[in-house]
Amino acid sequence: NIEFNPVDHPHRRYNPLTGQWILVSPHRAKRPWSGQDEKPSTEQLPSYDEQCFLCPTNKRISGDENPDYQGTYVFSNDFAALMVDSPEAPQSSNPLFKTQGVRGLSRVICFSPDHSKTLPELSVPQIRGVVDTWNEQIEELGKDYIWVQAFENKGEAMGCSQPHPHGQIWANSFLPNEIERKEHNLKAYYQEHGRNLLVDYVNAELEDGSRTIVETEHWIAVVPYWAAWPFETMLLPKTHVRRMNELTDAQRDDLALAIKKLTSRYDNLFQCAFPYSMGWHYAPFFEAGTDIEHWQLHALFYPPLLRSASVRKFMVGYEMLAESQRDLTAEQAAQRLRDVSDVHYKTEA
Amino acid sequence: NIEFNPVDHPHRRYNPLTGQWILVSPHRAKRPWSGQDEKPSTEQLPSYDEQCFLCPTNKRISGDENPDYQGTYVFSNDFAALMVDSPEAPQSSNPLFKTQGVRGLSRVICFSPDHSKTLPELSVPQIRGVVDTWNEQIEELGKDYIWVQAFENKGEAMGCSQPHPHGQIWANSFLPNEIERKEHNLKAYYQEHGRNLLVDYVNAELEDGSRTIVETEHWIAVVPYWAAWPFETMLLPKTHVRRMNELTDAQRDDLALAIKKLTSRYDNLFQCAFPYSMGWHYAPFFEAGTDIEHWQLHALFYPPLLRSASVRKFMVGYEMLAESQRDLTAEQAAQRLRDVSDVHYKTEA
Ligand SMILES: O=P(O)(O)O[C@H]1O[C@H](CO)[C@@H](O)[C@H](O)[C@H]1O
Ligand SMILES: O=P(O)(O)O[C@H]1O[C@H](CO)[C@@H](O)[C@H](O)[C@H]1O
Repeated sequence: NIEFNPVDHPHRRYNPLTGQWILVSPHRAKRPWSGQDEKPSTEQLPSYDEQCFLCPTNKRISGDENPDYQGTYVFSNDFAALMVDSPEAPQSSNPLFKTQGVRGLSRVICFSPDHSKTLPELSVPQIRGVVDTWNEQIEELGKDYIWVQAFENKGEAMGCSQPHPHGQIWANSFLPNEIERKEHNLKAYYQEHGRNLLVDYVNAELEDGSRTIVETEHWIAVVPYWAAWPFETMLLPKTHVRRMNELTDAQRDDLALAIKKLTSRYDNLFQCAFPYSMGWHYAPFFEAGTDIEHWQLHALFYPPLLRSASVRKFMVGYEMLAESQRDLTAEQAAQRLRDVSDVHYKTEA
Repeated sequence: NIEFNPVDHPHRRYNPLTGQWILVSPHRAKRPWSGQDEKPSTEQLPSYDEQCFLCPTNKRISGDENPDYQGTYVFSNDFAALMVDSPEAPQSSNPLFKTQGVRGLSRVICFSPDHSKTLPELSVPQIRGVVDTWNEQIEELGKDYIWVQAFENKGEAMGCSQPHPHGQIWANSFLPNEIERKEHNLKAYYQEHGRNLLVDYVNAELEDGSRTIVETEHWIAVVPYWAAWPFETMLLPKTHVRRMNELTDAQRDDLALAIKKLTSRYDNLFQCAFPYSMGWHYAPFFEAGTDIEHWQLHALFYPPLLRSASVRKFMVGYEMLAESQRDLTAEQAAQRLRDVSDVHYKTEA
């Protein structure tokens, strides 16, 4: 009888946040590849591009002109997926044709006036400026909306239509699927164990270390045990923090440092601007008095690359119809990200 | 007060098969695009390519030689994501670190010896050959495995690493997430209403017609009310059929015709080999005696294209972190697919 070994044997791992399994096929990375190549993002862009809608002093499609901003700059998305005043949809009595009216808005956050710089290339104080902008936006919009999703799509492979460093904020009058599901699972764990799931998880990972990529004074970034994307990571504070506004000043500075280190490791892995979608999850803005002790602030990074700067993992076919599948273990991915420097390759002497 | 109008106002629609909502933002398709372009697949390939692992008489990486096959040809995937004899994984007592051992296998189905032909370019009898091969494979593997996923990834945009027309079969010793979830939701509907969810849905769509793309004697293809991908479709028999082996001879011939019409409309939309992932869902192979009346056989097509042969919808950022979002209504998508011919543009006189 052979003994089970996660590096050789296909297995499933359970994501307690989503209640979904992930199929892990660690022996599979050996197969040949003749499919699509991504255009790796290694070119050096100019600091200012007169064609760019996001550069300071340029005109946007709406006709509005960007100010000559120095740090971050926030404006309303001219092509928002949501509207602040949509009417309610009529109730359907047929359970197969259920519609719901929604309200919301979208904003764009420019991370820097410099067209050529991505997050890891900004200084720690500049990244701290991005952290503060996230926090202010979430605070403000959380007064009117139950959910505020802050995220960044980086790179053409992640559908980013603008190379200028920026993220987005979408505010929603409803709890989106992923948040609803997380609310359910975090609460169930809290009710069963009397403890916070993600605080327990942070403590377990601090002790284990095999999935840790970055550890700073106040933060830890790991490839979660249940990662679906090859180099997926989760970034969490080491203490219990339900929402961004509860972070201390020291935790905010240290968050900027942790983001710089994590995204530098990403870029260093394949020596390119590593594409990803990232965003923040935290306690939704329920009505006052609702229990949110089961929530823990965390950022999720979903990068698509698998083999190189130009070959990505496709979540298609089996993945769409059946289950997410990955080609290396979380521990193998973490090892590879630990093996590269946390100083960005462009700035290393 | 404005009245709700699904073509102008953002709303959510509920997918009763997955229990998930989809955010519909029909006004959004107007925004400009300067992001990634796909390489549209319009080039004419040769009927035989000596470099292709799937062409008749060629050698595969494993060293095996393909026979000089005439119809379909099935072989074991040389780089399977699953193994027939993986050991069981040890039980973990920690709910945050749950692992499960899995067994399974993967096979490749060549749809045709002709390297240059995609599904819609095959004749109806040739497509009927593919239907029969799916059925035989599912029958055979269903004796050993609870789930057998038949699917096709078509096009580089869907991670297909081989242009030769082919699909895959993955057999699993477990119920994958999507099937588990569907089992749960179909059963709950059956228990509540005493009727089959998808049979009810087929009847509603046959009556409505606004989401219908193809209707043949025995089959209907619709853009489901809750579609997430821009031109997502579902193909279902008009009567209650729990598994593929229950299809009559006439239903099988007619299925080949329906597939040819549906995939021809896809190719005609942007005059290219329309990429997609498609696959079959049906009653899992539970132990004998388990009730499966709540299941209905159906195929799902998930195509990524949105604006043109080269611009896709990216399910990133907000979609990964919060909820799927689409830029046109299901009815608008259906109208566009109905507006093109069901005869393939390459064969039209
Ligand atoms: O087996 P293939 O076609 O090489 O691989 C493709 O399909 C698989 C099943 O959907 C995916 O896991 C891979 O990411 C994708 O590239
Ligand atoms: O708003 P953008 O950056 O133009 O668009 C991008 O992000 C959105 C939110 O994740 C997605 O819905 C789009 O498909 C994607 O292309």
